Amino acid sequence: MQNLHDLADLSIDEVEALLRLANKLEREPEPRALEGKILSLLFLSPSLRTLTSFQSAMARLGGNSFVVSPEMSIHGLESRSGIVMDGSAAEHIREAVPVIASYGDAMGIRAFAERRSLHEDLTDRAYRELAALVDVPLINMESAVSHPCQSLADWKTLDDLGVPRKTGRLVLSWVYHPRPLPFSIPASTLQMASMRGMDVVILRPRGFELPESIMNNARQAAAAAGGNIMETEDRHEAMEGAHVVYAKSWSSVSQYESRPGDQALREGFMNWCIDEPWFATARDDCKFMHCLPVRRGVEVADRVLDGSRSVVIREARNRMIAQMAVLHHLLAN
Amino acid sequence: MQNLHDLADLSIDEVEALLRLANKLEREPEPRALEGKILSLLFLSPSLRTLTSFQSAMARLGGNSFVVSPEMSIHGLESRSGIVMDGSAAEHIREAVPVIASYGDAMGIRAFAERRSLHEDLTDRAYRELAALVDVPLINMESAVSHPCQSLADWKTLDDLGVPRKTGRLVLSWVYHPRPLPFSIPASTLQMASMRGMDVVILRPRGFELPESIMNNARQAAAAAGGNIMETEDRHEAMEGAHVVYAKSWSSVSQYESRPGDQALREGFMNWCIDEPWFATARDDCKFMHCLPVRRGVEVADRVLDGSRSVVIREARNRMIAQMAVLHHLLAN
Amino acid sequence: MQNLHDLADLSIDEVEALLRLANKLEREPEPRALEGKILSLLFLSPSLRTLTSFQSAMARLGGNSFVVSPEMSIHGLESRSGIVMDGSAAEHIREAVPVIASYGDAMGIRAFAERRSLHEDLTDRAYRELAALVDVPLINMESAVSHPCQSLADWKTLDDLGVPRKTGRLVLSWVYHPRPLPFSIPASTLQMASMRGMDVVILRPRGFELPESIMNNARQAAAAAGGNIMETEDRHEAMEGAHVVYAKSWSSVSQYESRPGDQALREGFMNWCIDEPWFATARDDCKFMHCLPVRRGVEVADRVLDGSRSVVIREARNRMIAQMAVLHHLLAN
Repeated sequence: MQNLHDLADLSIDEVEALLRLANKLEREPEPRALEGKILSLLFLSPSLRTLTSFQSAMARLGGNSFVVSPEMSIHGLESRSGIVMDGSAAEHIREAVPVIASYGDAMGIRAFAERRSLHEDLTDRAYRELAALVDVPLINMESAVSHPCQSLADWKTLDDLGVPRKTGRLVLSWVYHPRPLPFSIPASTLQMASMRGMDVVILRPRGFELPESIMNNARQAAAAAGGNIMETEDRHEAMEGAHVVYAKSWSSVSQYESRPGDQALREGFMNWCIDEPWFATARDDCKFMHCLPVRRGVEVADRVLDGSRSVVIREARNRMIAQMAVLHHLLAN
Repeated sequence: MQNLHDLADLSIDEVEALLRLANKLEREPEPRALEGKILSLLFLSPSLRTLTSFQSAMARLGGNSFVVSPEMSIHGLESRSGIVMDGSAAEHIREAVPVIASYGDAMGIRAFAERRSLHEDLTDRAYRELAALVDVPLINMESAVSHPCQSLADWKTLDDLGVPRKTGRLVLSWVYHPRPLPFSIPASTLQMASMRGMDVVILRPRGFELPESIMNNARQAAAAAGGNIMETEDRHEAMEGAHVVYAKSWSSVSQYESRPGDQALREGFMNWCIDEPWFATARDDCKFMHCLPVRRGVEVADRVLDGSRSVVIREARNRMIAQMAVLHHLLAN
Repeated sequence: MQNLHDLADLSIDEVEALLRLANKLEREPEPRALEGKILSLLFLSPSLRTLTSFQSAMARLGGNSFVVSPEMSIHGLESRSGIVMDGSAAEHIREAVPVIASYGDAMGIRAFAERRSLHEDLTDRAYRELAALVDVPLINMESAVSHPCQSLADWKTLDDLGVPRKTGRLVLSWVYHPRPLPFSIPASTLQMASMRGMDVVILRPRGFELPESIMNNARQAAAAAGGNIMETEDRHEAMEGAHVVYAKSWSSVSQYESRPGDQALREGFMNWCIDEPWFATARDDCKFMHCLPVRRGVEVADRVLDGSRSVVIREARNRMIAQMAVLHHLLAN
């Protein structure tokens, strides 16, 4: 592993090695492992957990990091090719990205879906273009369809909780959100659970099926790992015997390029807010997962989020631990 | 001491131990004492000295830190309980604060007075609610009524200057400022000088008496330490034999919830700008203190601030030294 | 060398010693050289490369840094003398700068030309006033007429490329830019090439001659080093046998205090965009240099910037290496 673009690029053995390293670093800190090493962090999209957990992860290993976000540049960054730059943007990413990369021993980039084209987002075009400009180890800090650090953290969280790899049942549930959100988290979560060989259920209302390319990748991973994937809009059926429900909102594929169309569709499902009755057919100790940020009273009821089912803070803390392993793997001598 | 919420939580012995440690670290740096340790810094209010002195303090001890301010989060932070989050705020402090805390070995929080209710601010409700969400050592980086790091720095500054603890006379003087400022600095300074057992004079115009709860806390501390507290609006009397005048503006208690009412009251006292004639009855070497930022020509005349009386830069530098002691105490093995 | 205000303050021997140290640190990292040392970075003007390369340089040597920019302060910073601060600015640089300086072992300041007065900018008045407030080693991170770190990086880049010191030909070429830019880069580049004793050609349209004070300094340096300086508006003549062309836009001296006047003048020269035909009379391997950020299609054609002539990323990376040498020289025991 020279880069971390997508969880699907890793073999099960590589994931397991990373998680063993994560668990080791959690128990036995190595505060000088990355002495003199620098991580550059480029945020083209907003962040709270990723921004802070990467800085902390790097520093806990004795390294250091610096952060760049577009508002720090003189007049924003241009990303279009072949353009005459006589407008407000004073710098092109074709200079900015290699320069920032050249100041670090590894780099992290966050670039959310641009929502101009479903096809471009599903093929992660913007991230791939940025990645081509970087000649140090690169970590995807969330692109249009992938968030591998979140998935590593979630895999570790499931392990920490003792959820079995092959027989564990994970329900990936669409929930209501006032804005159309990208596919990065549902795609990554589905991939992660499929690679684990879990019994995966996608619970979503009609119109919010996941894109075929995402489903196909996951089906391949499930087949290889001996797991299976089911889709339903029936809560009762979905939650039957579930070990964990992973909540996330996402966009409608058919309305992806039309915000009003998506809005009209989703407004019919404002009651998709996870609450205690959802767990009626689940295992008694069924857990609630969410990558955060989460909207209280909209995506999930307070009593679930504040109750014993919720493991969201542990998930978030595992971001830092998983990333320590990734950084150690990429940068330690 | 597991946290630093308020100076009044410390015994005199604890303060003295911290200041001995501060003086030791000032003479003999320990650049590896906090190796691999991380401080998270959450600024819900603006900062210059606190922001930079905490980063520097942590790094001088071999640790590292990261900064969060609300504009970094996706859409600001919600703090109200039981709310349906269908507006612009995408994350609740009940998730954000524990997550940020989980990435550090200690945490600092700044949250100024909200000025919605005098009672809530005087009981430091907002800060106490945030503190309840943190399960690592927590440092108050200025709340509605408390700024213990400033007080430790000021205590050290008074020691550095040789101002006697029991017989030293400190005048806490209200000064004009175009905006109604909170009670955190006057409350903390009064508490600090009272704990030192000083002869404390509060010099303020009518209408700008300090709140009773703040006065009561200080009177208790003064009684325990053998000092005393006097209030007056007479400069001549107040400054008689003073070792130091500590300038700060604050709000009117009676107009706390009415900005126009406070404004009308304070505009009668625009001549409360400390200038050389104020020192007529003071000791010749009477010093001028201010926590900064200070408005030149409004709170104090240039010739005082630029003259030999002023110790404001030393006070500010002592912020860093005092905080090194706090961090060392909380985090060193 | 106790500070780095301007390249002209250094002797050739001092420059060579710094570059030897830079080359040594590039080959043999010293990740503990600046352990426990802190660099404060004050940006009164925007930055990308300087902001990140200084943070990285300091961290690679085992030190740490913190960043201040005006938007972090409560209400911006006042810099005028003798003013009554009853407006929006809550803090004066006469307090802010010494305080920030007191938290670091060295300091960097960036303060671009204010463009209120040509004379003030050419004498670097604003930077000199700030420098007078700092009592730790100070590094100029770009002022109105000087950018010594860029010049050290460029000197190193020319050495890296094997461009001969005495017989090398450097063309400093004005290029079109939609905004009137300051003299810091052309002045620093001209000084650097002149100190190297190069054959320097200033290529610019009429009306964009460099200020006399800048030319005089460079002529002195050229005379001392045995080089020479020529000015022309003839591309063919300028580029004859050139080893390198250094592109940069700058303002018109005669219209310096009139933006519309400068605009009218520069709009006649929108064809000053460096493209392949410019190199007709140059050496085959003539290189293209630019300090970045650069406007594609405006200052230079894509095919030049993306082709083998361009060394702009190497220049930018050398910023970090050169600054490591400066920091090591100023701060290592």
